[in-house]
Amino acid sequence: MTIRPIEIQRTTAKKQKPDQQQLGFGLHFTDHMFIMDYSLTNGWHQPRIVPYQPISMDPAAKVLHYGQTIFEGLKAYKTSDGRILLFRPEKNLHRLNNSGRRLGIPPLDEEAALDALQQLVAVDADWIPSEPGTSLYIRPFVIATQPALGVDPSAHYQFIIILSPVGSYYPEGVNPVKIYVESHYVRAVKGGLGEAKTAGNYASGLKAQEAAKEKGYSQVLWLDGVHRTYIEEVGSMNVFFKMDGTVYTPALNGSILDGITRGSIIQLLQKWGIPVVEKTISIEEIYEAGRKGTLEEAFGTGTAAVISPIGELNWQDNKLVIHEGRTGELSAKLYDTLTGIQSGKVEDPFQWMVEVETRKLDSSPLV
Amino acid sequence: MTIRPIEIQRTTAKKQKPDQQQLGFGLHFTDHMFIMDYSLTNGWHQPRIVPYQPISMDPAAKVLHYGQTIFEGLKAYKTSDGRILLFRPEKNLHRLNNSGRRLGIPPLDEEAALDALQQLVAVDADWIPSEPGTSLYIRPFVIATQPALGVDPSAHYQFIIILSPVGSYYPEGVNPVKIYVESHYVRAVKGGLGEAKTAGNYASGLKAQEAAKEKGYSQVLWLDGVHRTYIEEVGSMNVFFKMDGTVYTPALNGSILDGITRGSIIQLLQKWGIPVVEKTISIEEIYEAGRKGTLEEAFGTGTAAVISPIGELNWQDNKLVIHEGRTGELSAKLYDTLTGIQSGKVEDPFQWMVEVETRKLDSSPLV
Ligand SMILES: Cc1ncc(COP(=O)(O)O)c(C=O)c1O
Ligand SMILES: Cc1ncc(COP(=O)(O)O)c(C=O)c1O
Repeated sequence: MTIRPIEIQRTTAKKQKPDQQQLGFGLHFTDHMFIMDYSLTNGWHQPRIVPYQPISMDPAAKVLHYGQTIFEGLKAYKTSDGRILLFRPEKNLHRLNNSGRRLGIPPLDEEAALDALQQLVAVDADWIPSEPGTSLYIRPFVIATQPALGVDPSAHYQFIIILSPVGSYYPEGVNPVKIYVESHYVRAVKGGLGEAKTAGNYASGLKAQEAAKEKGYSQVLWLDGVHRTYIEEVGSMNVFFKMDGTVYTPALNGSILDGITRGSIIQLLQKWGIPVVEKTISIEEIYEAGRKGTLEEAFGTGTAAVISPIGELNWQDNKLVIHEGRTGELSAKLYDTLTGIQSGKVEDPFQWMVEVETRKLDSSPLV
Repeated sequence: MTIRPIEIQRTTAKKQKPDQQQLGFGLHFTDHMFIMDYSLTNGWHQPRIVPYQPISMDPAAKVLHYGQTIFEGLKAYKTSDGRILLFRPEKNLHRLNNSGRRLGIPPLDEEAALDALQQLVAVDADWIPSEPGTSLYIRPFVIATQPALGVDPSAHYQFIIILSPVGSYYPEGVNPVKIYVESHYVRAVKGGLGEAKTAGNYASGLKAQEAAKEKGYSQVLWLDGVHRTYIEEVGSMNVFFKMDGTVYTPALNGSILDGITRGSIIQLLQKWGIPVVEKTISIEEIYEAGRKGTLEEAFGTGTAAVISPIGELNWQDNKLVIHEGRTGELSAKLYDTLTGIQSGKVEDPFQWMVEVETRKLDSSPLV
């Protein structure tokens, strides 16, 4: 594999960095971005790092009309000794290509894309926040840019990576969330786009998410679109339930995302000798365990919050309080372990973390 | 209702117009476009007609990541005596707002939007082709432009209208199409986005459409996502079947588009005294009618092709030839009547057509 050299055009006007206590999520962007173009004749070409800037887009670009786009989300962490660590980035780039296959988007060279991502993070390394719980959120995405209104795959694309310093998900310590079990709206269905990380899946959730918020719930738990019975996932998290000593999570069925945190949690549990089972889980089953007293803990898993304990479910106006609304022991242990590995404080037995070499950059041509 | 005056900035470099014989669909765009902005504080504001140009978009704009966008499609026709007619444009703007409600997009003033659309068409009136079957395709759309990666409705939007002169769908006369009945992929499911005209629904069809094309079929007929049995719609058309003297079309069930051509066909059939029934239709039912010899005709309806006779279906490798693969009498009559009304050649008993007043424009401020 030959990695094409990336042209780097550095900004001449560095932005002021936001207050690390007030970062929020995805609101601030760094000084640079990565762009690469695709055309039928040239394939993926002209990888470049440029100052963060608006992109110029034809109003007929297919992404705006037919949603041909895919994305990823991962984080870079700064360790206390100043190293920069990425959590399983190769998994994200592999999933990006899986999503692309479903959307008819030409595959990226995953190794070259990872190299680009690392170089971009290195260029904007001074943007990685250091406060506990903060990190640099990395958003790689591909958009269809051909200006043509026929409903077919685009002939032109752009692969872009942008970076956003983000705050701690839990500024006051890990706190259980209240989740609304959605019975009216459906996110995705088998045969649809559910297992791809693509715009349409999130568009379809906006309305449900808003309604849940109005009722005082922070996110929505999706049920399957066919039977409206089987548990799928939460807004942007996979979901786990500990019942009678065993941990259960919905099996990958084609309509939910194959979460990288999910996979990592399964590996951790297996290592710890805690039984973990991927299977079809009905919402009735969870409520039944709640009544019987065998539902011990529930939590969501995802890049943004890592582990999000669930303190309450509301399904058709039946409230189910879990672990007295407090964070369970296993949830806390998983959170501490995973965030510990990510921040370089805890041993990394699976070699999940990839260090970004900032020195490597010095050899890149500056333009 | 007060219609805010639209600022008009005319191009100083008119483009060369494409050959009317080679227009294709959605490949050429006119000299101007309409834009209006939305912000939480100002609502919809600053309506303007400007030279057709790329839009400048933050790479974090929500439309690129979460698909918060809606669109419409309608046509302007030039009559032989030089008038410009729109087909039921108020229906499209009303549907745009219906779609917007599902996507959490703030509503447009439909009357003002129609006025904007008419003014834009008037400004680019010399782009409306006059060859038989050609027209000016009008694409109004709304995109979420706030640069923020949180998954919630945008605080900023743009409403844009672009125009594209399009060729005849049938350069060699109306011809039946071969349609592939999709059993693997699903377009939309009840509770999802199916009844909205929004990007994600089309993204989800790209893969199926490509596979169908490879097998020699021009479009896909979608089955419902729950039972994979009930007929929904074709790619970008609603679908009708004439069986034993009665015309059937799938009832609006929340997962298909409420097509404006569909509604117009139902009105025409009722006026002609031909029984027409909206109901749940299974694919087995159609094949059974085919075997019994009571399936007389099938056709798709939509803005692009108006009426598209269906000559063959392929469902799980079972081919069903309809009306010997030739255009049926009713399909032909509907096509002739509707295109006749649209082009101003046939009486318009329902007052569907709206004339664009090119004079009105003279009073607009030129900038
Ligand atoms: C729909 C959905 N499910 C699950 C997840 C969790 O995936 P991961 O652990 O890879 O962040 C995400 C977020 O990425 C998501 O958007
Ligand atoms: C999914 C879908 N169904 C049906 C139609 C037909 O609708 P109309 O007759 O309003 O063009 C279209 C095209 O607009 C469409 O995109």
